[in-house]
Amino acid sequence: MRVLSGMRSTGKLHLGNLTALERWVELQNEGNECYFFVADWHALTSHIDSTNNFAGWSLDIVKIYVAAGLDPEKSVIFIQSAVKEHAELFLLFSMLVSVSRLERIPTYKEQKQQINDRDLSSAGFLLYPVLQAADILMYRAHGVPVGEDQVYHIELTREIARRFNNLFGEVFPEPEPILAKVAKLPGTDGRKMSKSYNNFIPIDTDEKQLWKMIAPMMTDPARKRRTDPGDPEKCPVWEYHKAFTHSQEELDWVVNGCKTAGIGCIDCKKLLHKNLSAKLSPIWEKLREFDKNPEEVKKIIKEGNAKARAFAQETMRLVYDAMKFGW
Amino acid sequence: MRVLSGMRSTGKLHLGNLTALERWVELQNEGNECYFFVADWHALTSHIDSTNNFAGWSLDIVKIYVAAGLDPEKSVIFIQSAVKEHAELFLLFSMLVSVSRLERIPTYKEQKQQINDRDLSSAGFLLYPVLQAADILMYRAHGVPVGEDQVYHIELTREIARRFNNLFGEVFPEPEPILAKVAKLPGTDGRKMSKSYNNFIPIDTDEKQLWKMIAPMMTDPARKRRTDPGDPEKCPVWEYHKAFTHSQEELDWVVNGCKTAGIGCIDCKKLLHKNLSAKLSPIWEKLREFDKNPEEVKKIIKEGNAKARAFAQETMRLVYDAMKFGW
Repeated sequence: MRVLSGMRSTGKLHLGNLTALERWVELQNEGNECYFFVADWHALTSHIDSTNNFAGWSLDIVKIYVAAGLDPEKSVIFIQSAVKEHAELFLLFSMLVSVSRLERIPTYKEQKQQINDRDLSSAGFLLYPVLQAADILMYRAHGVPVGEDQVYHIELTREIARRFNNLFGEVFPEPEPILAKVAKLPGTDGRKMSKSYNNFIPIDTDEKQLWKMIAPMMTDPARKRRTDPGDPEKCPVWEYHKAFTHSQEELDWVVNGCKTAGIGCIDCKKLLHKNLSAKLSPIWEKLREFDKNPEEVKKIIKEGNAKARAFAQETMRLVYDAMKFGW
Repeated sequence: MRVLSGMRSTGKLHLGNLTALERWVELQNEGNECYFFVADWHALTSHIDSTNNFAGWSLDIVKIYVAAGLDPEKSVIFIQSAVKEHAELFLLFSMLVSVSRLERIPTYKEQKQQINDRDLSSAGFLLYPVLQAADILMYRAHGVPVGEDQVYHIELTREIARRFNNLFGEVFPEPEPILAKVAKLPGTDGRKMSKSYNNFIPIDTDEKQLWKMIAPMMTDPARKRRTDPGDPEKCPVWEYHKAFTHSQEELDWVVNGCKTAGIGCIDCKKLLHKNLSAKLSPIWEKLREFDKNPEEVKKIIKEGNAKARAFAQETMRLVYDAMKFGW
């Protein structure tokens, strides 16, 4: 199976991204043909005023991709804007989907309503899922690891693939979403995790900094004193445990300790810190190696870009052959 | 002054295009730096079901460009889809213009209302003027010869240039429209000229075929008999005379002869045929030379594409330098 996924270059990757990344690593290690990229053109829809940071963010993201287990020998790791063919396929696909179809996409409506600190009025934002379709179909991917909120975009991608194939002949497979099992993490303050609230835990940190972010985390507001029992379902720390604490014994210890006031919130947070540190330590170690050899990541990107470009050029040849068109 | 314009590859060029082309030749011969292209990506908005004809249409259009006086030594003549950078700039510009701004463009609303035999619901059609802005600004053009109906698109192009320059620093000049003086020609049957009505006179024809198209042309419907006086203002043939008969004496002969029934419609049409044949003969001659040497036009296109691509790559370098972004 050919698999493709990407993350936007809009800042540091955080623990919410880590669960997605772990799924990517699994897919890679199961022997799938994998393409993983940094979506810097996509980042323009919300971060047009930060383009000067894109290159740095992209480098940092690729470092984390590799540190978390993506292997440049097994997976193609690349930057979207280095493969100009994505823009070309985006243009062609924009002819195959109606404005009203795009306006009906739930994430479009939701984000326009919910996000007030960014200008989402642009045509580029309306066409965001068309660029996504170009990203996916460029590699004729069969599977796309995505979050629940992106499933509808894969449905649009399937529609575009069908419409192209009907008009011009079979070029694109219809990709399937590969859903990650992990729930969305809340922000450390209990609100929705958002870069503008600064309530996220970046992957690239260290043990000491990690504790400084975990210690003040919001917990069940009803548990005011150490002796009050708490409700894990109302506690953001518990959501983090569910994602990163894998021993059933420890999970039971947290739930029982919280409900009976047998443990304090600090005890609970210390366990989270221990488990997260254990998970992140190998990533941190690899990241510090990158710090010592900054050319390595650039070499990985250069080689990945070249491989992606070669595949993309082959797809565009198939596309224009099918359309009987182009120079 | 750097000048850019293009025509869509949606079929044969006709006499309506000729008046625009003559303006292009003037601009070229006045010593401007000229870029003229065939807009095959633009043709997708209305002719997605005819892509197999695009290559042939593009070749025919370039032949007529050159036959009508564009000189590949003086002007860069190229095909839009051969310069992939247009798609890339289109993608970037889609981030700089709002959906509502595009929906307010008069030609968008008008065409959606008036054109019923083509599906204009696509996102690509909404973003048509954004692709036009990319075409124009790619060559940092100062002047754009356009018809009256396109002036609003140039205004949008100026807005996009301003928005980019404000965000990222001065890269693009704000282009001015260069209006052609000639009125729109009606169809030979008196209706709006349209490829679907087949009521247009193609440039690539010959003296005999030309007469077969002029002879049955609609005239003033009130002039039923040879002895009835006519009203030139109600006659499509007169519109063609205004565009292609340049001698004042002949124009007076037509008007007076029509109003007094001194000449018949056939006399009037014969004069139009004579004048059009005189104008088109050198074009036909050059077109027949192309028929003998079909490689010549391909060579012109190949060289033009390479020159356009070199300029486009330089513009994209300036764009990404300004945005401090890109690989």
